[in-house]
Amino acid sequence: VITLADIEAAAGRLAGQTVLTPLLESPLLNDRLGRRLLVKPECLQRTGSFKFRGAFNRLSQLDADQRKRGVIAFSSGNHAQGVAYAARLLGMASVIVMPADAPGPKIAATRAYGAEVVLYNRQTESREEISAGIARERGLVLVPPFDDWFIITGQGTVGLEIAQQCKALEITPDAIAANCSGGGLSAGISVAASALLPGTAVYTAEPADFDDTRRSLEAGRRTAAPAGGKSFCDALLSPLPGELTFSVLREKARGGVTATDAEVEVAMATAAAHFKIVAEPGGSVALAAALLGRIPGTGPVIAVVSGGNVEPALFRAILERNQPL
Amino acid sequence: VITLADIEAAAGRLAGQTVLTPLLESPLLNDRLGRRLLVKPECLQRTGSFKFRGAFNRLSQLDADQRKRGVIAFSSGNHAQGVAYAARLLGMASVIVMPADAPGPKIAATRAYGAEVVLYNRQTESREEISAGIARERGLVLVPPFDDWFIITGQGTVGLEIAQQCKALEITPDAIAANCSGGGLSAGISVAASALLPGTAVYTAEPADFDDTRRSLEAGRRTAAPAGGKSFCDALLSPLPGELTFSVLREKARGGVTATDAEVEVAMATAAAHFKIVAEPGGSVALAAALLGRIPGTGPVIAVVSGGNVEPALFRAILERNQPL
Repeated sequence: VITLADIEAAAGRLAGQTVLTPLLESPLLNDRLGRRLLVKPECLQRTGSFKFRGAFNRLSQLDADQRKRGVIAFSSGNHAQGVAYAARLLGMASVIVMPADAPGPKIAATRAYGAEVVLYNRQTESREEISAGIARERGLVLVPPFDDWFIITGQGTVGLEIAQQCKALEITPDAIAANCSGGGLSAGISVAASALLPGTAVYTAEPADFDDTRRSLEAGRRTAAPAGGKSFCDALLSPLPGELTFSVLREKARGGVTATDAEVEVAMATAAAHFKIVAEPGGSVALAAALLGRIPGTGPVIAVVSGGNVEPALFRAILERNQPL
Repeated sequence: VITLADIEAAAGRLAGQTVLTPLLESPLLNDRLGRRLLVKPECLQRTGSFKFRGAFNRLSQLDADQRKRGVIAFSSGNHAQGVAYAARLLGMASVIVMPADAPGPKIAATRAYGAEVVLYNRQTESREEISAGIARERGLVLVPPFDDWFIITGQGTVGLEIAQQCKALEITPDAIAANCSGGGLSAGISVAASALLPGTAVYTAEPADFDDTRRSLEAGRRTAAPAGGKSFCDALLSPLPGELTFSVLREKARGGVTATDAEVEVAMATAAAHFKIVAEPGGSVALAAALLGRIPGTGPVIAVVSGGNVEPALFRAILERNQPL
């Protein structure tokens, strides 16, 4: 069982390494929504997403021999950057297996952080097999993207900070909404929130076609979304919640909400106009759901904007075709 | 003489009201620049700029009778929003005199924060006369934009936070660059820095055609820039440093740097791509100067991004025509 103490221990390891992202608020949006909306902008985190937290926390647990050999991870982008940069800070080599069609800036950034990038074809190859092969061959430690104790407790520091910041602001939020792929972020947040904000409900936020966690929470067991779904939220395309993450979420999360790609685009334009942040598609689903009134309650709601690694051309196009709220 | 203790007193008044904006850093940009660049993103501050700090600090000093009558300010935008929102939080009425050609979102936001907005024609009317007239008529307290003890000490909390954050990160910066119009921000920062970071040089950053503070620091007395200059940095068009601000800057600032509008546009695109923030033109001059290597030294440099209130259409156009570094 993951406890608050485990997340506090992770926070101790991350102290001085992570950005203490603030809570942002727009009185204009609040007036329009009829409730307080606060945004936790993890797009401002090192490497542009919350993933750095879990990666650094996981890598800091490796022993001297493991550190010497290095790590390997597979990721569509944000976990890749988090692992690559954490490895660099800890003086370790890293290999990152990425889909060849991942956003260009994510691949470039992963290389620039010092990782060796191995590209694979998402349609014809298995990233798990490729990673396992390289790991075996070179003796590398595989860093999983979400279904891992130290990844979850690292991401949980987002929830710890939210609870501390809400206390300082004398806010008791009705709800926290966190974007969800495999569930590391939402599971970690839900552990912190259940301990420190017991009256606050945690909701997972997923693209409408990838609502496996929402379905799983309703069914009480891990349930996939229908095959063939599409979304431009490249960070949130996991087909199933993790085993460990879902065991936490089943107990601690209140439910799941979703947003369509079109709704996510409006949220991105709104985030730029009102919160002055650049959010990526997969970072903006929880915000979209909050802006659309899909998070139950009338009291304060916290939306975690989990990443900002969007291709400049796509970001421009989204600002071009969407009016902010 | 304004001292560190005065700024610490301001920080006490602002506690819980302001956003503790983080220091952001991009390892990729650092590698490219050959030095550490840290950004203090005051675009994330309440009302989208640092101006809220000075405004709240100033308004919190008014006595019960003054609070009952309310305040008036003239501003092209950011001071307007800061005063309007501070007044709302403190339960006071506010009148803001704004140029009719100020950016639309700034006027709309000022109204939405609860202020009565009075528009004037920048070419044919005097904002000082209009404001003085309304103040006299209604018994309102005029809140000056920069040349005021409590405005300067409020803005100086940016410098106090930078010093505290640098200490936590174990960084001793070579330099801090702050955007400068009348000089409230840079004067306040220079007081905090001279006390807490005695080895750190403070530079003012101005649009190339509005480099009155740079000229004044060189000449040792308040000196205007040549008339007829043009810049799209609407927050930084002051023709002269203030008397009080310059008396501080003359003693404590190292010098002035500038950037052209074209250079500022690249800085805005770079801020979005690497720091995931929306910066306005007048908020990006110091960053532009830092990116262009115009801040002396090879050690860490802090660039204050002082505001993010840019019209969405202009922001889009700038992203369209500029590649990030």
